Amino acid sequence: MDKDLVIGIDVGGQTSKCGIVDARGTVLAQTVIRSDETDKPEEFVASLAEALNHIIVDAGAEGRIRGIGVGAPNGNYYTGTIESAPNLKWGHDKVELAKMLSQQMNGIPVSLTNDANAAAVGEMTYGAARGMKNFIMITLGTGVGSGIVINGEVVYGHDGFAGELGHTCAVRHNGRVCGCGKTGCLEAYCSATGVARTAREWLEMTDEPSELRSLDKITSKDVYDAAKDGDKLAIKIFDYTGRILGEKLADFIEFSAPEAIVLFGGLARSKEFLTEPILNAMNANVLPLWRNKVKLVYSSLKESDAAILGASALAWEL
Amino acid sequence: MDKDLVIGIDVGGQTSKCGIVDARGTVLAQTVIRSDETDKPEEFVASLAEALNHIIVDAGAEGRIRGIGVGAPNGNYYTGTIESAPNLKWGHDKVELAKMLSQQMNGIPVSLTNDANAAAVGEMTYGAARGMKNFIMITLGTGVGSGIVINGEVVYGHDGFAGELGHTCAVRHNGRVCGCGKTGCLEAYCSATGVARTAREWLEMTDEPSELRSLDKITSKDVYDAAKDGDKLAIKIFDYTGRILGEKLADFIEFSAPEAIVLFGGLARSKEFLTEPILNAMNANVLPLWRNKVKLVYSSLKESDAAILGASALAWEL
Repeated sequence: MDKDLVIGIDVGGQTSKCGIVDARGTVLAQTVIRSDETDKPEEFVASLAEALNHIIVDAGAEGRIRGIGVGAPNGNYYTGTIESAPNLKWGHDKVELAKMLSQQMNGIPVSLTNDANAAAVGEMTYGAARGMKNFIMITLGTGVGSGIVINGEVVYGHDGFAGELGHTCAVRHNGRVCGCGKTGCLEAYCSATGVARTAREWLEMTDEPSELRSLDKITSKDVYDAAKDGDKLAIKIFDYTGRILGEKLADFIEFSAPEAIVLFGGLARSKEFLTEPILNAMNANVLPLWRNKVKLVYSSLKESDAAILGASALAWEL
Repeated sequence: MDKDLVIGIDVGGQTSKCGIVDARGTVLAQTVIRSDETDKPEEFVASLAEALNHIIVDAGAEGRIRGIGVGAPNGNYYTGTIESAPNLKWGHDKVELAKMLSQQMNGIPVSLTNDANAAAVGEMTYGAARGMKNFIMITLGTGVGSGIVINGEVVYGHDGFAGELGHTCAVRHNGRVCGCGKTGCLEAYCSATGVARTAREWLEMTDEPSELRSLDKITSKDVYDAAKDGDKLAIKIFDYTGRILGEKLADFIEFSAPEAIVLFGGLARSKEFLTEPILNAMNANVLPLWRNKVKLVYSSLKESDAAILGASALAWEL
């Protein structure tokens, strides 16, 4: 039988999602394993292989797996390794995940990259960027990730780590401290945690009335719900977030002249409040030749499948 | 005889330099024509073709020209056109320069791109970026141009205009008005004109003694000469210029993870005063994984040949 299927794995801090995917992007079978039950990479890979073999049998896919794609934090495409990933319990030092997993899976080839790059490949293969050769994927989740596609290929750079747009500088002076140790990074403002931080700062600094004042701990979802209720402060928080993101998108457009910016991730669900401020700031800050010409689109992948699809799409290139 | 030679043409506002180049990067013959004696593209192309035919005969290169490469402001690689170039007297609207020149030259293929992209190809083919697959060329002249190379190829983007790093935002609030109509662009600070502007502003705003005070009209060359004399204000101007450039280079590194940044152009001659502030700001602002890892190098092409070599290198790809 033809090797007509691939496997996609999205490695996260707490869980890893795995699925078998066909050429049309249908997830035929999927499973989830814990990522945080061991600090030994070997043990994690063994449990991953066991889970994969289960779903392969379930889906009747024995002998049909062409390759395995893995999206993982700090994943390096060139070396197939995960390097010093603070969110992975077993991710200390350098883990040769692609090699180890391929060995456990009887030599099925494994391709690995960071999660945002995987999302970009997924969007190009199955989603909103189908047919596009030049676009920039921005993932707005707990952090801000990015996958840059130029001439139909993900940009990995000299060392395999290209596309860290979440750590470009959004606020030059007195910027917020970012998790990476720098200050003023885009991620410190335009991630879900950045939005929550803006809310906390503004509630403290002003007397403006807001339903957010009644909450103990504020998440970006709370800010979204408040904005939907017409809460003015919440709407202003999204205006601010969108403006900062739009200003940086203008810089990115001047770099690679993409056809579109694709937004993905939890915070992108607040698009009804983000789109206008993003577009206004992006078009006000870009050279006239690109003004109102670069599309802003949102991921079209079903959210529950997106991570698996993104990683699986990598495997078709193997 | 083999078609073993190429022609490089650097189109500038006042003059256009043309040369015949062999595979080693030796300029066998060259000439210069005026670019500003006509406002009719046809007449400019006719005088260009005439000049080329002269040097072809002089160099005994009849039948040996494989292709012609042209570097020109606002040149579009995809379409071979120059679009609304304010500095070219005949550059109004869209000029199909590649097509017109090829017709005048008996069908010799012509490739065209903007001057900074041509410089990047030249540096990769003959200069400081030989053997590099990922680097960013920044040209520090009257303006700030850029040519981005990823995986050994110049990035042209969706529309052919990628790589306008001189117009990314260096100063977000109350930034200088740039020639492009935006404010705060890198070019308004880190070009030769930007340096002169900094000098004028600082002389006006402060009482600091400086030999620059005795000059009527200040150029970046004057600032350089003063810095060489130990003038403290002049040295501070280069510190400021280098810091702003270094801060933006950190952003660019986070985009494409290049092996090196290559600096070129008139202002790059002030490297003894620029290198340290650039490197300090670049390494302070980049993610730890790239800190002190990305090289800062200067063009190694002979300045008088560089423009011709850059453009000619394009022609080898034809």
